[in-house]
Amino acid sequence: MSDTKILLPESDIPTHWYNVMADMPNPPAPPLGPDGQPVGPDALAAIFPDAVIEQEMSAERWIEIPEPVREIYRLWRPSPLFRAHRLEQALGTPARIYYKYEGVSPAGSHKPNSAVAQAYYNQQAGIKRLTTETGAGQWGSSLALAGQMFGLEVRVYMVKVSYEQKPFRRSMMQTWGAEVLASPTDRTEAGRGILAKHPDSPGSLGIAISEAVEEAASRADTNYTLGSVLNHVLLHQTVIGLEARKQFELAGDFPDVIFAPCGGGSNFGGVAFPFLEAKAGGRELRLVAVEPASCPTLTRGHYAYDFGDSVGLTPLMLMYTLGHDFVPPGIHAGGLRYHGDSPLVSQLHKEGIVEAQAVQQLATFEAGIAFARAEGIVPAPESNHAIAACIDEARRCKESGEAKTLFFNLSGHGHFDMAAYDRYFAGELEDYEYPAEAIDEALHNLPKVG
Amino acid sequence: MSDTKILLPESDIPTHWYNVMADMPNPPAPPLGPDGQPVGPDALAAIFPDAVIEQEMSAERWIEIPEPVREIYRLWRPSPLFRAHRLEQALGTPARIYYKYEGVSPAGSHKPNSAVAQAYYNQQAGIKRLTTETGAGQWGSSLALAGQMFGLEVRVYMVKVSYEQKPFRRSMMQTWGAEVLASPTDRTEAGRGILAKHPDSPGSLGIAISEAVEEAASRADTNYTLGSVLNHVLLHQTVIGLEARKQFELAGDFPDVIFAPCGGGSNFGGVAFPFLEAKAGGRELRLVAVEPASCPTLTRGHYAYDFGDSVGLTPLMLMYTLGHDFVPPGIHAGGLRYHGDSPLVSQLHKEGIVEAQAVQQLATFEAGIAFARAEGIVPAPESNHAIAACIDEARRCKESGEAKTLFFNLSGHGHFDMAAYDRYFAGELEDYEYPAEAIDEALHNLPKVG
Repeated sequence: MSDTKILLPESDIPTHWYNVMADMPNPPAPPLGPDGQPVGPDALAAIFPDAVIEQEMSAERWIEIPEPVREIYRLWRPSPLFRAHRLEQALGTPARIYYKYEGVSPAGSHKPNSAVAQAYYNQQAGIKRLTTETGAGQWGSSLALAGQMFGLEVRVYMVKVSYEQKPFRRSMMQTWGAEVLASPTDRTEAGRGILAKHPDSPGSLGIAISEAVEEAASRADTNYTLGSVLNHVLLHQTVIGLEARKQFELAGDFPDVIFAPCGGGSNFGGVAFPFLEAKAGGRELRLVAVEPASCPTLTRGHYAYDFGDSVGLTPLMLMYTLGHDFVPPGIHAGGLRYHGDSPLVSQLHKEGIVEAQAVQQLATFEAGIAFARAEGIVPAPESNHAIAACIDEARRCKESGEAKTLFFNLSGHGHFDMAAYDRYFAGELEDYEYPAEAIDEALHNLPKVG
Repeated sequence: MSDTKILLPESDIPTHWYNVMADMPNPPAPPLGPDGQPVGPDALAAIFPDAVIEQEMSAERWIEIPEPVREIYRLWRPSPLFRAHRLEQALGTPARIYYKYEGVSPAGSHKPNSAVAQAYYNQQAGIKRLTTETGAGQWGSSLALAGQMFGLEVRVYMVKVSYEQKPFRRSMMQTWGAEVLASPTDRTEAGRGILAKHPDSPGSLGIAISEAVEEAASRADTNYTLGSVLNHVLLHQTVIGLEARKQFELAGDFPDVIFAPCGGGSNFGGVAFPFLEAKAGGRELRLVAVEPASCPTLTRGHYAYDFGDSVGLTPLMLMYTLGHDFVPPGIHAGGLRYHGDSPLVSQLHKEGIVEAQAVQQLATFEAGIAFARAEGIVPAPESNHAIAACIDEARRCKESGEAKTLFFNLSGHGHFDMAAYDRYFAGELEDYEYPAEAIDEALHNLPKVG
């Protein structure tokens, strides 16, 4: 039997991130300002350092990873690629299943890949404080970790429903020295506006973004950071796919289908984009973004210009959206509760280069538990989405007899999500199909462009 | 700068465990039965499979690791050895600090190293069910994992105070298919006896052991497993120290002092025993077992024959003990709340071959947080004991200018212990010095031998 883990030495941590914008068939649609004109770098300077703004707009194929960032990556990278021998056996499938495990980072997910880079660039720019939002708490804890590594203060606006469901993510952020607030708060205009209308609002990523952006824009020593959606975040995450390509070379194999959970797109982009080059070379390869049926952005949303936040502070981005005022139901995969999606992933989906698939909540937990019982690791609910889609494909391979190579990104562990597993075992979780009327209604609330 | 992680390929997973009994200056004192005579293998056959009983009594230096056990080890082993560059910098010490990280196992600690072996031998012996006790939940979740891997049912008696403080450890065990009960329960004679005297008993490892042993002894299809204390458990844990020796060779270094947390001794024995050979060769090397001041077995206990459980069901073992009816205060390092200690570690301590040191609770959290802020990983409270002792030594090196090589076993992560961190931040945790009177009193309660 071949090795279970395909490992790389630290010298194989990528020296450059891969920028998919260099290879897209059509240039990415620009973000637009309130006047309908493309926003220039200046419009972003109040909340981002120059280096990040450059990356957001760059068409360079390869962007060098600064040495201090690689130094921090060495605390957990390269992450292992696993061959899921035991899961294959349990399923009785002829498919070969691989997963890249990003839960080895101290924060337990792939999120620090970008948090560390963003903290570094802000520190270099003389910034002292960072704000951000967090859903499941994975991004917030990653930024808390990264801020601590580079000596920056961090304030995290945490979506209230997650703040209450995941108190231990909060403790973890505090261990790394960050301050955590339940959003919506009464400390920002944006938060107060929401609370006036919906005093019991469970919060959403969109609302928390509004709060964090508002604070960053109003203080010179403070910048804003985002854990997904934007081009530079997906860029930083490409270390996942780049390492995986090298690991597949070592394994003497290559994926036929890649699955990754998709909320804002950082996870999916990070693992899938570096494989696009191979696909462009004529190789048969399916890249599947897996999202919750309760928040079906790519599969049922509108491809339109919309705000990234709930209140309308950000530039308009062309993406699949359920409407910026969408507040998704409180399902447990907090990291996937976002009204929009990465403009890069959205455009590639629109152009038929990547696929999307929506899965129901109960099926994702069923898949995650089957995975845990075979492979040991208890996955994050977000990761369970990719696992569910991958297991479905492995079962189809069993029926057809095809020995496909399947690969998914195990974006994080579920150690801070056991309350969700508890509720699953207690029969308290339900499936939820987002209503068609709500999607129709969102059309009317999309901002007018130009 | 040298690599942060020293990794080994799967082919370097040890093929044999190291049995320290072969190299002890004096043969280990035998366990005694109620009649004061050494117990033979037969006395243990009601609750252990033959292969485990053989290992418990073997004087063979090297014992082969069965291939199916190594197959499961490959899910996470070899575990990484880290050079703590950032912690060294933060402390400004000339010491070189290394730590072996056992938190990479699916259960998050070193405990699966023995759980997997015990589950395997029981399955081979035709056993269908396993019982066990758990304190912090680390052993229980490890056995749940291992039972699932080998198709055995698992029932875990979890110390009540931990059951309440750590609900998510319970959910994790359930994810792996185990049943978890808060001990003392009313399902066993032992549990009912305790509850009659102390209806509000917070439980203890000793009580939970009584319950698990009683159930195993009364059912032919059921055996008992223990996560520490016994010789075979320490034997299985030597994979840690064996890997570390190879990793130090690769690093071109060798420890001057080794620190490990010590409750029942499996963690300390696992990392320290394989280094004893080097020490016997005349090498200057200190092996330091670090225990909580609230449960100071090695540093203040009596070296005497005592029961392994609270009720007196087990054979008598010669060990450091605070008395088998000792119920330690509810400090959060649940894994270290045990009245006794491994007979092997006890004898080596009595003979001056290994050292022991007691640390206070607040200092351990302070050390753990300093570690997390430098190295990223949030450690388990048990591990914080070793970190505190190691940081103290690194600070002494700073004063003396000595560039010692310090090594500690980071036995697990703290993802299921964030409530304890929370309480630390809230100022709710206290130091606790075990009262001298209680230790004197324990003398009178020790069982009469022979």
